[in-house]
Amino acid sequence: MTVLQEQCTRLRQAARVLALADTGTRNRALLAVRDALLAASDEILAANREDLEAGKAAGLTEALLDRLALSESRIAGMAEGVAQVALLPDPVGAVRNMRTLPNGLIVGQRTVPLGVVGIIFEARPNVTVDAAALCLKTGNAVLLRGGKEAFRSNTVLAQVLRRAVADCGLPEDCVALVADTSRDSAREMMGLTGYLDVLVPRGGAGLIRSVVENAHVPVIETGVGICHMYVHREADLDMAVRLTENAKCSRPSVCNAIEGLLVDRAVAETVLPRIRAALDACHVEMRGCPETCAILKDGAVPAGPDDYDTEFLDYILAVKVVEGLDEAIDFIAAHGSGHSEAIVTENYSAAQRFLNEVDAAAVYVNASTRFTDGFEFGLGAELGISTQKLHARGPMGLEALTTVKHIILGSGQIR
Amino acid sequence: MTVLQEQCTRLRQAARVLALADTGTRNRALLAVRDALLAASDEILAANREDLEAGKAAGLTEALLDRLALSESRIAGMAEGVAQVALLPDPVGAVRNMRTLPNGLIVGQRTVPLGVVGIIFEARPNVTVDAAALCLKTGNAVLLRGGKEAFRSNTVLAQVLRRAVADCGLPEDCVALVADTSRDSAREMMGLTGYLDVLVPRGGAGLIRSVVENAHVPVIETGVGICHMYVHREADLDMAVRLTENAKCSRPSVCNAIEGLLVDRAVAETVLPRIRAALDACHVEMRGCPETCAILKDGAVPAGPDDYDTEFLDYILAVKVVEGLDEAIDFIAAHGSGHSEAIVTENYSAAQRFLNEVDAAAVYVNASTRFTDGFEFGLGAELGISTQKLHARGPMGLEALTTVKHIILGSGQIR
Repeated sequence: MTVLQEQCTRLRQAARVLALADTGTRNRALLAVRDALLAASDEILAANREDLEAGKAAGLTEALLDRLALSESRIAGMAEGVAQVALLPDPVGAVRNMRTLPNGLIVGQRTVPLGVVGIIFEARPNVTVDAAALCLKTGNAVLLRGGKEAFRSNTVLAQVLRRAVADCGLPEDCVALVADTSRDSAREMMGLTGYLDVLVPRGGAGLIRSVVENAHVPVIETGVGICHMYVHREADLDMAVRLTENAKCSRPSVCNAIEGLLVDRAVAETVLPRIRAALDACHVEMRGCPETCAILKDGAVPAGPDDYDTEFLDYILAVKVVEGLDEAIDFIAAHGSGHSEAIVTENYSAAQRFLNEVDAAAVYVNASTRFTDGFEFGLGAELGISTQKLHARGPMGLEALTTVKHIILGSGQIR
Repeated sequence: MTVLQEQCTRLRQAARVLALADTGTRNRALLAVRDALLAASDEILAANREDLEAGKAAGLTEALLDRLALSESRIAGMAEGVAQVALLPDPVGAVRNMRTLPNGLIVGQRTVPLGVVGIIFEARPNVTVDAAALCLKTGNAVLLRGGKEAFRSNTVLAQVLRRAVADCGLPEDCVALVADTSRDSAREMMGLTGYLDVLVPRGGAGLIRSVVENAHVPVIETGVGICHMYVHREADLDMAVRLTENAKCSRPSVCNAIEGLLVDRAVAETVLPRIRAALDACHVEMRGCPETCAILKDGAVPAGPDDYDTEFLDYILAVKVVEGLDEAIDFIAAHGSGHSEAIVTENYSAAQRFLNEVDAAAVYVNASTRFTDGFEFGLGAELGISTQKLHARGPMGLEALTTVKHIILGSGQIR
């Protein structure tokens, strides 16, 4: 048995105990975690400072250092998030569709934890706390494998979490951190069939692709978004400008920001210059089809062959003029990543067709794609945004961390 | 692009059309398939005879030839099954949890088809028809890759299906058969990310393991069952004998048959000889722990090291005497495959603990494990029995072939 397999075996034992803990015990553990985080603030910040210094020395980018950095207020925010999770309704234990079959068997489906959840993530230490809170709430043990940049921070956070959980009478191995932050440990986790019930990658496109391509354990794919805003000929053009600006510029580094803009030919000459002006404040680079470039002149550069299939995560927008709804829907089917797609229109039938025919986790009429988010959708907490179709699609709340068990009550029935 | 990728591209286009077909059109297509199967009976049987002759010449076992064989009545049964699927309620199009958020956005989850479903199966040509019917019902295109033994039968069946679908105005590429029955095509299907939305292996343990280990596309694992009957000290022993006999002997080749029997020490001397006698009619070989062998003498052989971890699918039963409920639950956690587990007891608390603590797709009190089946559970149709925890667990009906799409109706909201 490898070190990781031994660790998973302990987690599996802990998961069996945790799965039987009642809602009150799990919620008390979450509140204990909240208190412990606040109490250990200095210790966490000291470890984080070491990570930041090592990161600077290693030449990490400013963006990465920002993701890595904790502060008193960020720790308070994490603690507050844990308390919020404690307040959410418990999905575990619900029994659905209980019924008596003609032969007298009583059958129902009970919602139960998945078991042991693996999370592979990158620089952000808050994932340690968020993921552990969601797993604890739903009765799952969690194996966390964070990036090496955040190892000192994660180690202290995991210690704090384990102590708090143990203080509530639950096994400390409900939460564990992988000690090896090399690629080997990530690769080994992908093959831990029978040890991990699910593996969730949280991070950049490279990490997610690597997990999806190499994992043998069941994976929930999250987060890659090539999203579009489509301005229909009957759009309210003021709204089209406002929605495009918001969907591109409010936070371009996240998956629910748009990477592409489609505009009906009939309104392109009117609306494209207005969108160009709205995007000027953020210095957005527009990469356009020949028609777009002809309309915007210096305001756009020609789109290259890959620009319509790229998740820029930056102040760049790929633009195309289309004839109408059919071309827009076909374009999205060919280039979208199935995350979030929006139409701007006042035409009822166009809106209905877009909703029906576009295949994505979230399909919008007259709203910014930036709303694809567990908190915005009212789920209270978010494990990530699933871009796959199995098990969970779109923002994943607590339910995504559960499965069902068929319960059958008999009186001696044979078949 | 490979031949298979081209085929999948046509399926994806067909799937977009099929997903928009209304319930009536999809049901009419199913009834057309039913009629076409009956009308083409002679043609199908002629192709099947060729498969059977080739199979005999190749030395296939009797069991395999039986799986392969079609007859007028089997074709009628397949046609009837298709008509039954037409009568089931349509899961597609339901909208759940539609609500208005504080910012005025209206959000709901609409049930939609998965898209393109791949099925890899072995000798049984009826899977071609069953799987196509379930996919057609739920608006999914299906790519079928059957075993080479049944290729002639499957080819004719697929032609019949495609013609019937086309006659109803749907694209014939809603259903397609992979022409290459070598291992290469199966392996290629496992890597068709972006072409297939899900891959379902239907067949023996070797096939399923190979798909689970090698697939990059999302997989639904089906069918491996190491199931147990546990006779608690407070069991009704008559019932225990009857349930054990039924769960082992009524159809040992299927996944919901038991492979293991656990008996409380307190009743082992009383009940084991009675179970032995009940299993005599089917000449079941009992492989026991030393205590079992001491009680049953010539009636049992010593269990080998792998016997408690083997899916025999045969008239063999691995038997172990346990001290009580704790040991039984631990044993099942260590050796069960998470399919179906049963306790026989009249003790309320023991029944509750077993239901709560055993982690399996189906957990029974006082009933045969043989009921783990889509038809028995009243789902009307079955795609297989999922032994994984993600997406679907236990018998999979039509819902397992669907996913959700978040629908968001706005009025210009930005974030």
